[in-house]
Amino acid sequence: MTRYQHLATLLAQRIEQGLYRSGERLPSIRSLSEEHGVSISTVQQAYYLLEEKQLIHSQPRSGYFVASRKAVPPVPALSKPVQRPVEISQWDEVLDLLSGRMETDMLLLGNGSPDLTQPTLKPLWKILSRQAQKQDPRILAYDSIVGCLPLREQVARIAIDSGCQLGPDDIVITNGCHEAISVAIRAVCEPGDIIAVESPSFHGIMQALRGFGIRAIEIPTDAVTGMSIEALELAFDQWPIKAVIVVPNCNNPMGFIMPEARKRALLALVQRFDAAIIEDDVYAELAWEYPRPVSIKSLDVDGRVLLCSSVSKTLAPGLRVGWVAPGRYRDRVIHMKYIVTGSTVTQTQYAVAEFIRQGYYQPHLRRMRQIYQRNYETFSCWVRHYFPCGICVSRPQGGFLMWIELPEAFDAVLLNRELRASGIQVVVGSLFSASGKYRNCLRLNFTFPLDARTEQAVALVGAAVERAIASCAA
Amino acid sequence: MTRYQHLATLLAQRIEQGLYRSGERLPSIRSLSEEHGVSISTVQQAYYLLEEKQLIHSQPRSGYFVASRKAVPPVPALSKPVQRPVEISQWDEVLDLLSGRMETDMLLLGNGSPDLTQPTLKPLWKILSRQAQKQDPRILAYDSIVGCLPLREQVARIAIDSGCQLGPDDIVITNGCHEAISVAIRAVCEPGDIIAVESPSFHGIMQALRGFGIRAIEIPTDAVTGMSIEALELAFDQWPIKAVIVVPNCNNPMGFIMPEARKRALLALVQRFDAAIIEDDVYAELAWEYPRPVSIKSLDVDGRVLLCSSVSKTLAPGLRVGWVAPGRYRDRVIHMKYIVTGSTVTQTQYAVAEFIRQGYYQPHLRRMRQIYQRNYETFSCWVRHYFPCGICVSRPQGGFLMWIELPEAFDAVLLNRELRASGIQVVVGSLFSASGKYRNCLRLNFTFPLDARTEQAVALVGAAVERAIASCAA
Ligand SMILES: Cc1ncc(COP(=O)(O)O)c(C=O)c1O
Ligand SMILES: Cc1ncc(COP(=O)(O)O)c(C=O)c1O
Repeated sequence: MTRYQHLATLLAQRIEQGLYRSGERLPSIRSLSEEHGVSISTVQQAYYLLEEKQLIHSQPRSGYFVASRKAVPPVPALSKPVQRPVEISQWDEVLDLLSGRMETDMLLLGNGSPDLTQPTLKPLWKILSRQAQKQDPRILAYDSIVGCLPLREQVARIAIDSGCQLGPDDIVITNGCHEAISVAIRAVCEPGDIIAVESPSFHGIMQALRGFGIRAIEIPTDAVTGMSIEALELAFDQWPIKAVIVVPNCNNPMGFIMPEARKRALLALVQRFDAAIIEDDVYAELAWEYPRPVSIKSLDVDGRVLLCSSVSKTLAPGLRVGWVAPGRYRDRVIHMKYIVTGSTVTQTQYAVAEFIRQGYYQPHLRRMRQIYQRNYETFSCWVRHYFPCGICVSRPQGGFLMWIELPEAFDAVLLNRELRASGIQVVVGSLFSASGKYRNCLRLNFTFPLDARTEQAVALVGAAVERAIASCAA
Repeated sequence: MTRYQHLATLLAQRIEQGLYRSGERLPSIRSLSEEHGVSISTVQQAYYLLEEKQLIHSQPRSGYFVASRKAVPPVPALSKPVQRPVEISQWDEVLDLLSGRMETDMLLLGNGSPDLTQPTLKPLWKILSRQAQKQDPRILAYDSIVGCLPLREQVARIAIDSGCQLGPDDIVITNGCHEAISVAIRAVCEPGDIIAVESPSFHGIMQALRGFGIRAIEIPTDAVTGMSIEALELAFDQWPIKAVIVVPNCNNPMGFIMPEARKRALLALVQRFDAAIIEDDVYAELAWEYPRPVSIKSLDVDGRVLLCSSVSKTLAPGLRVGWVAPGRYRDRVIHMKYIVTGSTVTQTQYAVAEFIRQGYYQPHLRRMRQIYQRNYETFSCWVRHYFPCGICVSRPQGGFLMWIELPEAFDAVLLNRELRASGIQVVVGSLFSASGKYRNCLRLNFTFPLDARTEQAVALVGAAVERAIASCAA
């Protein structure tokens, strides 16, 4: 962090904590410069930054003032889903969301795709191009059913950062994390079984359960600490739960990181009931804290955790390179993988392996973490500024997703329909529940450049929300 | 065909028909040259070719003689599988086969991969390299769930050759034909349902049924004309069959092309019982007849045929580009596709679309058809020469697979184990049955260069078979 960023952060914290109140005049540039022993221009830059984030505004000839603003919206309360296993539907809404991808001029605030324009991706293009120039027929051939060895070696290497000691044989490559989850589910369950999920829970997980005839029991989940262990225990007491699926690090949609103590408690509970854990780690390397939070897999002693991940959020989703570290379920996972798609695309596997091996992965991750964290700061200011009062907003600790809870009577499905006419797509919360909850919630991403178009889109969403809430009340 | 090839074919036919008998002296070079009005050197070249194929041999100073040889082995008789639905197992054997792929110095006579070394593939490499150089972020992004439009357009175009009138919206792109089949099965069935399959039937189809808890009823299948319609009708009378899966064009493993009249009869029968047909078309463009045989899909009037295919056998399997034309089951197919893997890898889709669009696909197919047909001719001579009497051999009409039936008591599993120690892998027939049949059968491919190594491998397999048969008899 540079000096001025440091100062800006400090001032923002003071504002946040109420030390400087709404409308209050801020210290003069000279006095701040003296207080902190920095140059005048450093203070000026810090103030510019805060102004950009709309935390303060300048008044010509009188100085800087704390923006008259709403209080920071609270995070959503612990979720209260239905306390019994339910069948999953919501496919029409998912399809509607997916079909937005095809409309190229739509601003996809609902998309789960990372920013693909950064220069740290350039080496990936080079590797792809060199591969094609070498004309190695291996690239065109069926790959091994478990995935190519060079990639499994690199995946084992990066898994060390999550605390895992894995070898290449502990990993099975898949078509993205999506296939990893779907084969993991098939490996631990039979149709009709019950799996516990977070609530809200990623729609891809829900649909994968749907596809195999699994019933989901949604467990109350805290927006800051994750799935409630207490509620999970009650559910285990009551139902024959075969497995628990969690996204404990940089959760989709809520962005929390489950504290390590909770991860341990979750694992101990699952052990006690002799169930499995399917851990979706796909956003974990985008955690803003460094080193990245540990995976539950790293705490696993008896192979009951199936770690699922991919490069879809960290590098590029179109590569379709994911993996599962299946623990004791390896044989069944390989079988299910063969059943579902046969082997995985060859070229992109080798490309990703090369990208990591040559040392381009960590610098890329560093950059992306910074970009998303910076985006988040601005984006949450915009949301605070343009959205009405009375909403709850998640506090992501990594990744690029934000979850907004609106008043109970609000219908995000209608809102989304209205917004699409203006060329903006958001995700409607009801996709994240099997029991029809979260119709009053939205998920937004903050991967887009922080330019006028994006700000305008957020403003437009905020205004539409405000109108909708007003008409609810009327 | 050149003159000498033409002459060689003519002479081979005469030998086949018994006009020149085993051990008989062939006409002198001069007399043949006069008879056919061709040059001496043309006759010489024709004789060299026949010698290479071991149909004739030369005796210094006395001329050419018909090789003393066994009779052409008959094709296998109509199969007689168990007449009730069975659950599928055989996974261990499939896994064993797949793990052969990882042993790079193994001669994979059991592999289903095409020849990837031909110059007509060069433009594909160029396209892949140019794509990477252009750095179009679209290539790295999630593709539409149904696959990219340019590819769906080209697939619709090439489907015309099979007699189908399809638009891009009638096609859903998948991770190879494998995923196409697995989503097609899920789209038409529920776990516990019954599907009718050919017997023998491709192990990938069997395992896809297994994965979804479907029972298979194996229908007697003729090595020349395909699934017995009469037997299928009996099965329909007796069981609630939801769908029929067939590989009617260049069948895997038997290589037959189902006559068009039979295709019509099959469709009519399935219509009568209101079931669906899953048609696996993956080898059809490698039929040696031109134009290619029609698909059953092309005869479909009410959308009950799901056509599954890919470029895995025609271009390259590592691209993982396949598709399904799902007819009336489109919505369910898209849903199942999302459930299983999410979207398909982006880059190779665009590459295949470009390859077809720029006109490289047909010339490549022409070349591959010729190569495989030529390979087949030599390969079947080798089999006849090196294998013992008393076997049946399929007469493929396209593709690159050959099915060999050995005496009932023969155990191909043991044989395969023995061969692998010598660095050769074949496919054991039992993979192609859900009810434990075909343990006495082998599938070989003839994609390898017709060189000494390949001939030696065939000789080795033949000798091992001969020894095994002798020890059976003892
Ligand atoms: C939590 C979570 N898991 C899995 C996936 C799917 O990842 P992939 O694109 O690698 O299949 C996503 C993507 O949206 C996700 O958000
Ligand atoms: C008949 C048949 N169908 C489907 C497949 C699978 O094709 P793909 O590699 O495109 O998934 C094969 C490949 O072995 C096959 O032989």
